[in-house]
Amino acid sequence: MTFRDKLDQAIDRHQSLLCVGLDPDPAKIPASLAKEANPVLTFNREIIAATADQACAFKPNFAFFGSLGPAGWPTLEQTLAAIPAHVPVILDAKVGDIGNTAEHYARMFLDRLGADALTVNPYMGRDAVLPFLARQDRGVFLLCLTSNPGAADFETEVLAGGGERLYERVARQAAAWNTHGNCGLVVGATRPEAMAELRQLAGDMPFLIPGVGAQGGDLRAAVEGGRDRAGRGAIVNVSRGVMYAGQGADFADAARRAAEAMRQEINQYRG
Amino acid sequence: MTFRDKLDQAIDRHQSLLCVGLDPDPAKIPASLAKEANPVLTFNREIIAATADQACAFKPNFAFFGSLGPAGWPTLEQTLAAIPAHVPVILDAKVGDIGNTAEHYARMFLDRLGADALTVNPYMGRDAVLPFLARQDRGVFLLCLTSNPGAADFETEVLAGGGERLYERVARQAAAWNTHGNCGLVVGATRPEAMAELRQLAGDMPFLIPGVGAQGGDLRAAVEGGRDRAGRGAIVNVSRGVMYAGQGADFADAARRAAEAMRQEINQYRG
Repeated sequence: MTFRDKLDQAIDRHQSLLCVGLDPDPAKIPASLAKEANPVLTFNREIIAATADQACAFKPNFAFFGSLGPAGWPTLEQTLAAIPAHVPVILDAKVGDIGNTAEHYARMFLDRLGADALTVNPYMGRDAVLPFLARQDRGVFLLCLTSNPGAADFETEVLAGGGERLYERVARQAAAWNTHGNCGLVVGATRPEAMAELRQLAGDMPFLIPGVGAQGGDLRAAVEGGRDRAGRGAIVNVSRGVMYAGQGADFADAARRAAEAMRQEINQYRG
Repeated sequence: MTFRDKLDQAIDRHQSLLCVGLDPDPAKIPASLAKEANPVLTFNREIIAATADQACAFKPNFAFFGSLGPAGWPTLEQTLAAIPAHVPVILDAKVGDIGNTAEHYARMFLDRLGADALTVNPYMGRDAVLPFLARQDRGVFLLCLTSNPGAADFETEVLAGGGERLYERVARQAAAWNTHGNCGLVVGATRPEAMAELRQLAGDMPFLIPGVGAQGGDLRAAVEGGRDRAGRGAIVNVSRGVMYAGQGADFADAARRAAEAMRQEINQYRG
């Protein structure tokens, strides 16, 4: 089964476009878990169990596992093992390197860790991207227009000869590279005016949409502009807003309530 | 001591602008090491011991450790421990993510692994870069003009209003962000015409120069164009050309000879 089929099936089964981001910061984990052997792992497992049927995907961010040091790899492996098999994993590592090295990142994240999809940085161009797209059963989300303030430094620069912006060029190039139908784009919710325009450029490619919640993006505009013709394709990622919805011993219930509320709000705008 | 001081001291002590890249691929490791408990680690240690006094830095690429799976972290840690304390480590992971996440990459690569410098992807702009530059004793090499064919997809695009190219904008922005004097640039040897021009834009920022050897760049043009006013600043990285110089049981001698020859050739062009 391809990543896209797995994603669409999870969307339909859970009636959800919500992706739950897993950014486990040891400094933010509820005090009730302090005595666990591996508080981060227990926290992740509880968040996953509480939210899996509200989500169409989980997105672990590699940095939050890497910063655990030697415990990072086994904690990530066991976190992934806790995700139900029918819910796809988008591993967020924003990799980008020459072809020979990209192949090693593919082995790391797709083979060793078994991720269904990976985020990839387009700066270095095609040989940094194509080794991942060549894995036809896996997905790639190429950074396009991100949700952070620094997106204004380079991503939105206007290119000479036609007025296209860098992120638009990335989207157009991604559409051209997408010969296996497994490419998506990262498009922040913080620039709703760009969302519908990118949907035009990108056909039915799925969008991974960060920037709602802590970063202040407009959910309605993001979903209405980003959804594809089937009312899917606008995958809204929420990390802190779900994981850290509660700090008490009932943190998992709080996460579930936050995920459910977000899922329902998104569904209002799916059309 | 800052990264720049440590780098300059290693350059002077070893009379070398050669950075030895550590890209240990299990499929390419000499057969004579097959029976070692950890062939990759033994290989790395032998390469390091044979080349350390020929080098001004080592550059391990994280992908080649990550692709080892659970063995990756301890192998990388022990590889780093084998590098003499006076030779700086440039960890090549090409990270780039929002500020909150960048801080976790800083913990991973700079605190946990103790790297002296890190490669960073500029696509997401300032909040993906500044958390690393804020570590004043550590170095950052920002991807600018890379040595791979895909550099022609986005990096060399001309921006509207003045004819500046994207990689030139990155260099100019990096110079503006470099308030602590700890920023450098990755500039491929494959575009010698750009090297001297970037040196003008970048003042005395160090350049990390990939693309000689396997990728076919012009060494003389790279060093003559990239060196700074003190005849330093053009750090030429060679990975495969040193590590895999020999495949026999004498692979370490072969690596040393390759490193020494490269060091001497670079020095001819330092002026």
